[in-house]
Formats: sequence, structure tokens, C-alpha cells
Amino acid sequence: MNKITILIHCKDQPNIIASVTNFIAEKGGNIVYIDQHVDREQNIFFMRLESEFFSEAFSTEAFKITFKDSLAEKFGMKWRIYSSEVKPKMALFISKYDHCLYDLLGRYNSGELNLEIPFIVSNHNDLKFIADNFKIPFYHIPVTKDTKTEAEEKQLELLEKYDINFIVLARYMQIVSGKLINKYPNKIINIHHSFLPAFVGAKPYHSAYKRGVKIIGATSHYVTEELDAGPIIEQDVAHVSHTHSINDLIAKGRDLEKIVLANAVKLHSNRKVMVYNNKTVIFS
Amino acid sequence: MNKITILIHCKDQPNIIASVTNFIAEKGGNIVYIDQHVDREQNIFFMRLESEFFSEAFSTEAFKITFKDSLAEKFGMKWRIYSSEVKPKMALFISKYDHCLYDLLGRYNSGELNLEIPFIVSNHNDLKFIADNFKIPFYHIPVTKDTKTEAEEKQLELLEKYDINFIVLARYMQIVSGKLINKYPNKIINIHHSFLPAFVGAKPYHSAYKRGVKIIGATSHYVTEELDAGPIIEQDVAHVSHTHSINDLIAKGRDLEKIVLANAVKLHSNRKVMVYNNKTVIFS
Amino acid sequence: MNKITILIHCKDQPNIIASVTNFIAEKGGNIVYIDQHVDREQNIFFMRLESEFFSEAFSTEAFKITFKDSLAEKFGMKWRIYSSEVKPKMALFISKYDHCLYDLLGRYNSGELNLEIPFIVSNHNDLKFIADNFKIPFYHIPVTKDTKTEAEEKQLELLEKYDINFIVLARYMQIVSGKLINKYPNKIINIHHSFLPAFVGAKPYHSAYKRGVKIIGATSHYVTEELDAGPIIEQDVAHVSHTHSINDLIAKGRDLEKIVLANAVKLHSNRKVMVYNNKTVIFS
Amino acid sequence: MNKITILIHCKDQPNIIASVTNFIAEKGGNIVYIDQHVDREQNIFFMRLESEFFSEAFSTEAFKITFKDSLAEKFGMKWRIYSSEVKPKMALFISKYDHCLYDLLGRYNSGELNLEIPFIVSNHNDLKFIADNFKIPFYHIPVTKDTKTEAEEKQLELLEKYDINFIVLARYMQIVSGKLINKYPNKIINIHHSFLPAFVGAKPYHSAYKRGVKIIGATSHYVTEELDAGPIIEQDVAHVSHTHSINDLIAKGRDLEKIVLANAVKLHSNRKVMVYNNKTVIFS
Repeated sequence: MNKITILIHCKDQPNIIASVTNFIAEKGGNIVYIDQHVDREQNIFFMRLESEFFSEAFSTEAFKITFKDSLAEKFGMKWRIYSSEVKPKMALFISKYDHCLYDLLGRYNSGELNLEIPFIVSNHNDLKFIADNFKIPFYHIPVTKDTKTEAEEKQLELLEKYDINFIVLARYMQIVSGKLINKYPNKIINIHHSFLPAFVGAKPYHSAYKRGVKIIGATSHYVTEELDAGPIIEQDVAHVSHTHSINDLIAKGRDLEKIVLANAVKLHSNRKVMVYNNKTVIFS
Repeated sequence: MNKITILIHCKDQPNIIASVTNFIAEKGGNIVYIDQHVDREQNIFFMRLESEFFSEAFSTEAFKITFKDSLAEKFGMKWRIYSSEVKPKMALFISKYDHCLYDLLGRYNSGELNLEIPFIVSNHNDLKFIADNFKIPFYHIPVTKDTKTEAEEKQLELLEKYDINFIVLARYMQIVSGKLINKYPNKIINIHHSFLPAFVGAKPYHSAYKRGVKIIGATSHYVTEELDAGPIIEQDVAHVSHTHSINDLIAKGRDLEKIVLANAVKLHSNRKVMVYNNKTVIFS
Repeated sequence: MNKITILIHCKDQPNIIASVTNFIAEKGGNIVYIDQHVDREQNIFFMRLESEFFSEAFSTEAFKITFKDSLAEKFGMKWRIYSSEVKPKMALFISKYDHCLYDLLGRYNSGELNLEIPFIVSNHNDLKFIADNFKIPFYHIPVTKDTKTEAEEKQLELLEKYDINFIVLARYMQIVSGKLINKYPNKIINIHHSFLPAFVGAKPYHSAYKRGVKIIGATSHYVTEELDAGPIIEQDVAHVSHTHSINDLIAKGRDLEKIVLANAVKLHSNRKVMVYNNKTVIFS
Repeated sequence: MNKITILIHCKDQPNIIASVTNFIAEKGGNIVYIDQHVDREQNIFFMRLESEFFSEAFSTEAFKITFKDSLAEKFGMKWRIYSSEVKPKMALFISKYDHCLYDLLGRYNSGELNLEIPFIVSNHNDLKFIADNFKIPFYHIPVTKDTKTEAEEKQLELLEKYDINFIVLARYMQIVSGKLINKYPNKIINIHHSFLPAFVGAKPYHSAYKRGVKIIGATSHYVTEELDAGPIIEQDVAHVSHTHSINDLIAKGRDLEKIVLANAVKLHSNRKVMVYNNKTVIFS
């Protein structure tokens, strides 16, 4: 049995759903999941389908070609088709904070994540022992003002060598360059430790403390060239009070960061996120 | 333009989605919403569609007949089809508590609810003035142990006279009989002031206080003959602490009850709820 | 029996708690509530006490004088002492939105609020009928660019005539002037329909929609001269998704606004809020 | 500088607060935290204080004796006094689930927890490698129906040998005996994977799925002889829907269990929990 996931978006127009579902039925597929969304302001149609094919002759690549030639061109679709057999490959970028790293690796180990982690890269050597414990290759690529470009070249080599599909910045404390972003558009996931758009930039817990907010948050988003302004994938918050010091906010925030980043990673690796107009459509 | 909503459930089997979407396309309809769910344990398929028909010749009644004869019989579907033009009619049953009543009528007045409220009935006369303020007919039908059957007859008369589609018990402090429940299966919505299945029955806030829980809740569910055991539509909770007295729990709970009941009413009146096996499928 | 509430803040220094509790014991009072907070950054001590006095000779005014002369001067305290018998008087400022109004009046009617509402004032006449229903005096003071100063004079007259203690802007759609703010410092409560500091200013739901946030919020704060930048009293949030239109955000937001404002009103009227450095200390 | 924490409960009566704060002032202490609670139903007074003593001559043991002889006897207090220098010692009981273990050890490592973990004990050997990674002694004590008593003897030996103050059952899949419970009353913390009192006993996620709840939860409580009925320390919940399978509930639940258990451990180890009448008073 072959199972594929189809993501489509195009200008909204009549009969898209019937045409796609009919096409799949003709090819011998059974639809096991369908969801769609129409952005009424932009007049854009989004759809996500999962379909099973029981014929031994089925080939995902052949299906893609026919899909492109018949449907996609007719409706002017942007589309992606994934075989469920192929798990996406995720590179982990870290610095010195270990909470998101432990959290993601714990989930990875327990089989909760539908992905592979070919390697971990860090600008520091401090957390190498955790990568070792979980038996994941670890690369130490230091980054200084002078070596930034060179370091990024090394990162890019690794990303290509391991055929990486998406990158997760698990509290990686460096700003990634436009070159990397353009090479992985909407494929670099960051965790920012505030409920964006509040407290963009550095030290958001300090800003939250100063402003006296009663709620702190964390936001996972795709990285774009404008700092902390990319499409938001997931957000969550926690209540705080005047009794919490900055350190308390940081500690409470760690729990938010872990869960928000893990959820964003799950959504992305399960191909449930579509991006349009700097916003996300998140399928269930 | 005619817009209809279709709700379907049947044994899961191949090609349901393609057949239904194709059928609608053939009849000249454009699907503007589709969502489905498969209960893998019970092997049951659920689907909700919204479709627009632009032909002046379109008739919902004629569509229903063709749908029944062709699709519904072939797949063994249970189905309901609603015209968006017809708002469901809701009867409000109340006693002496006014918070859910004010909340629902405030939303009704502001146009937030897709329904009509032909009348309010109560076993007490205390809140008649609120019905009057909102200009909704009010019936006072007292209920005592001896007059229970007779009172229910009067209620049934009103329900039929006004052609009521569903009933909301907005903190109505009487147990409704099996006769009424069977006449309105999965059409009587109750609000219970606990996170069911905890604290079934009377005085749940007192039980919550005694048990020392750190969270209280409210649950909106369809009424079945077993007390507080019907299919759950919506639940929400609030954090509490040792500093809260029973009266504090009751006050905090009122806010939960209002919002949980209002959400359940919206889901039901927008035809987003399907019931199977004493559980609900809630479409988005 | 007389019951008083004491709020104190001063530079942190040894023996404040023992001195105050001792002082109350000497005057024959029994402390039934005590809570304190120290802002370690600013080195400021905050305390809230409730104390009962059973002697018939007790006078709150006499207590205040002794307290001031002995304790307050010694420790350099800023302090307020309230008799529990005196409910604070709240003026309601509204425009055309009715949801916060209905919510507050419903709570007021049910005895949930420890305050009096001597009057409601609005720059429109639309909601007069609600004030009438609840039998609360209603004043229509239109505000135009030209009549703004004059209108505010009329408002000030009313506030003085009714001896108002604090003002609630229940979605009042006018910016209040510095004159009013300075007359009622930390005594004007506003409800802003975003999780501040995100989306300051007009149309926050539109901005939230545009930014594609996954969480919306509401914030109740004291009004200061800088727009939406005053001390935050209470915040809450709700999860949203790409399926929500701007109107859906507005509707969901109404529920947040009601509850957040009501909670802020309760905290203020129960004398549980202290303000320092543009932040609030909220006692439980 | 010496810092102590004092926990008191006794029959409510006048002048407790003034007497205690005065006593501390006389002994040269400065109170840096005070909170109290009165259970009006049971007429019980609870208080928690933190106090700093700057005299070099101060001795916690001597203070305890004077406190007992003067204050405690006079007011009939039950009391505990802890020196902040002494971290409580916590034994971790585990089986095969690793999520709470990883979570607690990650926090322990990062310095978030005010406690020591002298050893981990398990009825299985599967997770020994994690204990090894974190360099914590690990004891494998298998438990079968026949060896239950004997196994518990070994556990008790370890608990005494390491001078353990409290026990955390981090998804330990054995029921502990009355003997152990009586030896560590209100000192054994369990994490139950439902919002108690709903779904007591085994397989709560299966029961939650069957009942069709829209919210799942986790509860941390002290272990008493009645199963899942001990005093609740902390609870939290997450929203779920019909789309979640039992496995989804289990995965979502893991995140709840981790955070709820970690919070309960922090509250207990910071001496912020008092138990009375099978309920907890949780100080902030």
C-alpha cells in the first residue's frame, strides 16, 4: 500500500475539490483525509489530502507527473506531493541552552516524531555530550564576527551532504543569513521566547518583566529576513504575576518554548503547514 | 444563490468523498467547505460539506430526493441536508439563574447566533422581566412532583406549536423525562457545572470544594436518559486554589457555564455536530 | 464589628511586618488577611492587610490618624486604609458596544460586585435602554472634535456630584484627556482588545489577523497619558487559527474583553491592586 | 545569614499573626515572606513565613525549641521549621516510561530544582542508562506478586540509608503499600494521568477516549491508602477533539504529566504545601 500527502494552493475557482477527488479516484486512490481552506480576502484556495493506493503498479513519481500535467496546470496550482514512506530530514542548530534539545531528542527517541535527525550543529561545544548520549553526529562550528560567512559555508555543506529538508533553531543564538534563508524558504523553524509580535528581538523576558505583563508566551515561526517577523506556526502562553522575577519568567518560559517548538516541528514534519502571505494555514 | 450544508455518516468504504463531491459538481454546486473524519475503531465515516448552487432552478427539496435515491442508498448513509436560509428554532428552558439567559440573549441581540428563539419557558416566574426586556414570549409552567407529567404536556404543545428544532436547558433545574428526550434525540442541550465525568449530579461545586481540586469546569452535552452521561459537545475549565470558597467556585463557574453553553449552542445551530456512539464529532 | 483594609508601600527595611501586626494587635484588631511583596530590583515593600476590630469604640478615622503619626511616618509609608462598609463608587463610560455593559450590569445585579454604580455616561444614546432596564441613571454627553473640552467638563461635574471613586471605560470609544487622567490617577480602568504590548492603538483584531497570530488577547489596564501603555491589571487570551475571519476574532474577543474587564473591576473594587513604576502588584 | 521557613497550622484564634511576627522580631529576625489562609468551614488557620536572621549566634535548632515552648504550645500549633540551607532529599521511583524522568533530570541538571536526588529505583532495568548518563545511582528492585513485600523492604532500606525526605513516583507502575505510605505520610508524590476525580485507576486515557471528553488532564497528588484519592497538589489540562486517537491522547498527556509533576515537586521541595483534611493549601 502506498500513501501520499498532497498540498495544493491556487486561486479560488469552482470545482477544484471535485476535480481533485475525482482524479484520485480514477487513479485507484482512496481519500482518507481531506481538508481545505479559502482565504476570502485574498481569494486563495488551500487543500490538503491524504490518499492510499493499493495497486502494486502505483508510483508516486508517475502520479506527480500526471497530476502536474492534467490538474495542476489547468487550475494554476502550486503543489507538493509527499510519499508517507519518506520521513523528512531535520538538522538541529543549537548553542548552549539544553531544554529544547533534551525535549526534542526525548520525543525523537520515543518515536513521537515523524522525522530523522542526521546531525546536530552548534557554535559551542558545551552540549556535545547530549548528542553523544543520543548517538547523533555532532558538529562544532564556532561563529565569530569574522568567521560568520565561512561558518555558514560549512553549515551549508553539511545541509547538502545530509540532504536536509528543514532546519530547527532550538534556541540557536545566532542570526542566520539571507543566503541560508533563501536556500530554505519556510523551512527554517525558530522558537522565539515571547508571544510575537510583542517583544521582538533580544531579551524578551526582561522586556516582559519591565512592562509588567500578566502573561508570557513563546512563538514558533519560519525564519525570514526580517527579524522575528516570519509566518507564525504555533504560540502558547502562561500566566504570570508580580511575584515572578525575571529568572522565574525564564524558567516558566522554558516549558513554553519546549512545547511550542515541539508542536511546530510535528506540524511541519507531518506536512500540515502551508504558507501564504507571511501567514500559515495549519491543517488538523 | 442557494447554500446547503450536508452531514453524512456511514460505514467507511472507498470512494465516498469522490462520489459525493462528483455528485455535487454534476448538480452544478461548488463546494466551499469539506471536512471528514473516520472513526478507525468503529470504522465509521463522517463528512460535512457546504455547497453553493447558483442556478435559479435549484431546489433543496429536489436535491434531497436525488441525493437519497442515488448516493445515500448506495453507501448506506445516514444524512441530513439543511438550507442555510432556514435558521433553526431554539426553545430556552430556564429556572431562576439568570447568567446563561443574559449571556445567550445578549449574543442573540447582537446577531452573533444563527438561530431564532420563539419562546422562553420557565418553572418559575422570576426571570419573566428579562424575557420581556428582550421582547421574547415567556411561558410560566410550574412543575411540582404531582404536576410534572401535565407540565411536560404543556411544554410539548409549545414545542410543536412553535415548530422548535432544539431545546437549550440554560440552568433549568428540573430533570426532563424520557418522553421529551426521545422526541428530541440529541436535540436537547444541557449545561452541567463540572468537567464531566467528574462530579455527576447535584451540587458539583460543593463536591469540587470538598475534593480539593485545583481546576473546576463546565460541560455542555446532549441530554440522554442517563443523568449527565450524554454526548459531550464542549468543555472548559478554570484554575482555582485553596483560597476559593464554595461561593467563589460558583461565581467563577458562572463564567465557564456561559461560554461553554454559548459555544455548544453555536456549534449545534451551525450544524457542526454529529453524534455517534454517545460521542460527538465537532466540525470546525 | 468593623473591618478595614490597609495597603502600604515603602522602602524595604527590617521589622515592617512585625511593627504593623503589633500595632494592629495593640489597637485590639485581629488580622484576618495578610500578604506582602518585595520588589527586589526597586527595593520596595508592599503589604495588604485586612483586620477586624470588635470594640464599639473603634473608629476608622481615629485609627488612620494614629497609624499615620506612629507607623507611617517612621517607615516613610505611602498608605491607604478603607472601611469595608464603604463600597467604592464606579462610573461607567460607554459608547455603542453593549457586551461589556451587559456583562458588568449582570454581575452587579447578581450581587457579585462590591461597588455601586451611581450613573452611566455615553457619547451616544443607543444603549440608554439598557441603563433604563437596570434602573441606573444615564447621561448622554455627545463628544465631537469641537465639544471635547466642554463634554469633559460635564463629565467632571457628574463625577464630582456623585462622588465617584473610579471610572471604567467599558469600550468607550474616546481618548480621555490628561486633565481627567490626572484627576483620577490609577483610577480609570480601560479594556484594550489585544494582549498588550502587542497591537497598541486602533483596530487590534485587524492587526492580529494580518500578522497571522495563533492567539488573541485582551488587556485591562489603568489609563495613563501614553496610549495603551498604563499599568496592566489583568490579561487573558484565546487560541485562534487560520479559519477565523476578522469578524470571528472580534466575536471571540468579546468574550475575553468581558471577563478580563470584570476581573479587573473586581480586583480594583476589592482594593487588591497597588501600582508602582507603571506596574501592578495584585494581591490574592 | 540564616534563613528559615516556618509552616504553622492550628485552630483559628485572635492574635496569631501578631504573636508570631513579634516573636520573630524579638529573636532578631526579619520577615521576608508571610502568607496565611483561614479555612472558614473548619476554622483552621494556616501560615507560612520566611525569615532571615543575621546574628552569628543564631541556631535553627535553638529557635525551634524556643518556638515550641513559647508559641506553639500556647496556640496549640502543628508546625515545621526548615533551614533554607538544607535541601530536601528526593527518591525517584520509575518503571519503563522515560518522559517524566528526562524532564525531572533535565530540570535538576539545570539547577531549577531545590533538592537532591540521591538515587533512582526501578522495578525494571530499562532506564538504567538514563540514570547513568545523569550520574545518579540506580537500583533495580524487581517486583512480582510473590516478591512484593521483600522488594518493599529493600526500598525502605534504601530510603533510610540515604535519609530520604520525600518520594516521587514518576510513572512508577506499582501500587505502594500502606506500610510505605504510613512511613512517608504526605511525602509520596504521584502523577496520575487524568483530571481527578475523573478516571480513577488504570488506563484513564482509554476511559477518556471512550467517554468522548473534550479535555484531558493530569493530577499530581500525595499518595494515600485509597487509590488516586489523596490530597491534590497540582492539576492541568489540554483540549482534545474527536480527531485524537487514544495514542494521541497519550502523547498529549505526556506533556501534561511532565509539567504537572515538575510543578508539584517544586512546590513540595520549596515547602509551600500544607495538607489538611485530605486537601492542600498551596502557598505562592
